[in-house]
Amino acid sequence: MSLFFREVDQCVTAPQGFRAGTIACGIKSDPTVKDLAILLSDAPCFSAGTFTTSSTRAAPVRVCQERITSGKAQAVIVNSGNANCATGKQGLQNAYRMTRAVAEHWKLPEELILCSSTGIIGHQLPIEKIEAGVKQIELSRDQGNAFAEAIMTTDTRPKRLALEFELEGRTVRLGGVAKGVGMIYPNMATMLCYLTTDAALDPSWLQSELYAAVADSFNMVSVDGDTSTNDTCLLFANGLAGNTPLNDHHPDAHIFRDALRHITQYLAREMAWDGEGASKLMTVQVRGAQDKADAVKAARAVTLSPLWQCALAGSDPNWGRIVMALGNSGCTLDEETYDIFIGDVQVVAQGMAADYDEELAQTAMVGKNVTITIDLHLGDGQATAWGCDLTHGYIDINTSYPT
Amino acid sequence: MSLFFREVDQCVTAPQGFRAGTIACGIKSDPTVKDLAILLSDAPCFSAGTFTTSSTRAAPVRVCQERITSGKAQAVIVNSGNANCATGKQGLQNAYRMTRAVAEHWKLPEELILCSSTGIIGHQLPIEKIEAGVKQIELSRDQGNAFAEAIMTTDTRPKRLALEFELEGRTVRLGGVAKGVGMIYPNMATMLCYLTTDAALDPSWLQSELYAAVADSFNMVSVDGDTSTNDTCLLFANGLAGNTPLNDHHPDAHIFRDALRHITQYLAREMAWDGEGASKLMTVQVRGAQDKADAVKAARAVTLSPLWQCALAGSDPNWGRIVMALGNSGCTLDEETYDIFIGDVQVVAQGMAADYDEELAQTAMVGKNVTITIDLHLGDGQATAWGCDLTHGYIDINTSYPT
Repeated sequence: MSLFFREVDQCVTAPQGFRAGTIACGIKSDPTVKDLAILLSDAPCFSAGTFTTSSTRAAPVRVCQERITSGKAQAVIVNSGNANCATGKQGLQNAYRMTRAVAEHWKLPEELILCSSTGIIGHQLPIEKIEAGVKQIELSRDQGNAFAEAIMTTDTRPKRLALEFELEGRTVRLGGVAKGVGMIYPNMATMLCYLTTDAALDPSWLQSELYAAVADSFNMVSVDGDTSTNDTCLLFANGLAGNTPLNDHHPDAHIFRDALRHITQYLAREMAWDGEGASKLMTVQVRGAQDKADAVKAARAVTLSPLWQCALAGSDPNWGRIVMALGNSGCTLDEETYDIFIGDVQVVAQGMAADYDEELAQTAMVGKNVTITIDLHLGDGQATAWGCDLTHGYIDINTSYPT
Repeated sequence: MSLFFREVDQCVTAPQGFRAGTIACGIKSDPTVKDLAILLSDAPCFSAGTFTTSSTRAAPVRVCQERITSGKAQAVIVNSGNANCATGKQGLQNAYRMTRAVAEHWKLPEELILCSSTGIIGHQLPIEKIEAGVKQIELSRDQGNAFAEAIMTTDTRPKRLALEFELEGRTVRLGGVAKGVGMIYPNMATMLCYLTTDAALDPSWLQSELYAAVADSFNMVSVDGDTSTNDTCLLFANGLAGNTPLNDHHPDAHIFRDALRHITQYLAREMAWDGEGASKLMTVQVRGAQDKADAVKAARAVTLSPLWQCALAGSDPNWGRIVMALGNSGCTLDEETYDIFIGDVQVVAQGMAADYDEELAQTAMVGKNVTITIDLHLGDGQATAWGCDLTHGYIDINTSYPT
């Protein structure tokens, strides 16, 4: 934890002016499980978003992409249990109807309401249930954690964090929630992430900072290499803290940047760790790459290899599979210079087996948190990616997910 | 089966002039399992090869790539149980020593001997055992099937086929063997494939025909998306059938082309079907793509999706995962035109759920052989890819593979 910020409770409703509410409206088969959630700022926000790169993106993603171009938003409505994807014109109309329900109930401009859906693909939303649900939702400042729970699908636990820090002597907060946890792959996954802050920010700076933070966090996470149709990450900044708007020239810009980095990377790791069926988090650090793009390719390739994910599941230091993944990554590589470490144990030196203790390598693979370090010895490029192991659990979850 | 050709026995030794031999030389832990194999033509051959695109390719691949530039070869020596990859200069020397042992024993020019290795990465070959083994191997025409068995690693059964056909009134044969079955991904996999023929062919035609056949067969197979360091496909043509050398102007060129297509696609399907842990073969046919490259992208993307592979394992017609995979494939796609069929059941019409019978869709997912057809309705591009389901078996095999 940085000297500059400290953790606080209630994630997305920790910053002032943000309220949330949730309800079980009957989208999921279990009528007691919450499946509809709203996050709303009392004041209009500057807002930015990043979205799936899929060409079969879901209807709510299209609504967000259209509305976020204004750079402003005030609320988001999210349902779990149904992705509203591959649902044609009716699906798009339903996505608009979700936002209209929020706009009407809280008397807000419809174009300031965003929406997300996550769940099964190819079914029309039960839009009447959602509209009825919206009218029953009560918003409050202590519902941030409940919001984190209501957006989950196969997640086993909510993913949330809020940080507090000082800017110009004022207390400022930044909160975030995210959900995973299948179809998780660089370039966004079935992941939804909502970030809120009461800091005042220049809108263009907000956008570039969000893109940079996502590139180094959510875009470096993989569970299974599948990219979702619904991925969305939104940042809302209502400015209620009253600081001078942050931009590159603000002396304290780095504090907000570090906090944003901290929260997004925390949520990204949480997603990998809670990957479908995962029993272990893997952190792959690449250094010495020709450039950052190469480091990103190499780090991602290792997290994405099913063979290495299986080795990880079996705590087997079978580093040949790291060599294989590196070889296919597309990064520039000299076969006679690269080193590989599992934990602190150097298993490869200059592209060949190092002289290492098998037992120590084995020990480095045991435990919930395994770090692989690769040094390509070619330049200054570095990157970190996160992934998880591949277990029976992943298959159990995904052979039985209801259609 | 074409009217033009018929199956015969002994795969790679079916064409005249080819002999094979195998032995258990002690590379694999079980001393009774064969792990060394030689395939030799009595006459020098025109030869062509395709290899892994990995930048951590194994030593034997480098030897093959160097020697195949001459367009000539006469024999190949293959060991299973050790990949001779990430083994540095010593590994390269050992690969040359394997070929030298064959050259010396059968009094052939060393530069006509190729080599392959498959198995664990990062261990030096027990080269003395291999050299001793070579001296004990007896070659014969009835050892083609034994050759197919000796090159296996996690394969559960050998993959082999030979066809016989007539060219200018002469009987000509084409034989092939292949092994898989992990690290199987487009652009070659831990797959080794050897093809032999006694047909006479123009060497440049042989090369272009091999490339074209591999593009439509082995490069369209995936098991797990991992690409091996050792992939090799070699074609040997000794010309002993005495026909006028085949080239594009030969009136019967299409017969050889069809036979080569038939064998490579058969072996490719066999590899998918015998994918690690696989219980089902999936065939993905894409038509109506803007061009062939787009069709290839779309077909491959579906075979590669772990989520769809899990749905297949569970016989679950969860076509939303096909939509997801298509969306990420990078192919041009109109969200309002594409159709998807599972078997004969149309589950998606114009990018939305079709009006179909759930029970029929479910039935189409049962059975060992599931075909998915995607029509993008954008052009004439088409392609077929093969893959398999993802089961506990894959994980069991790959968490326990010995390091």
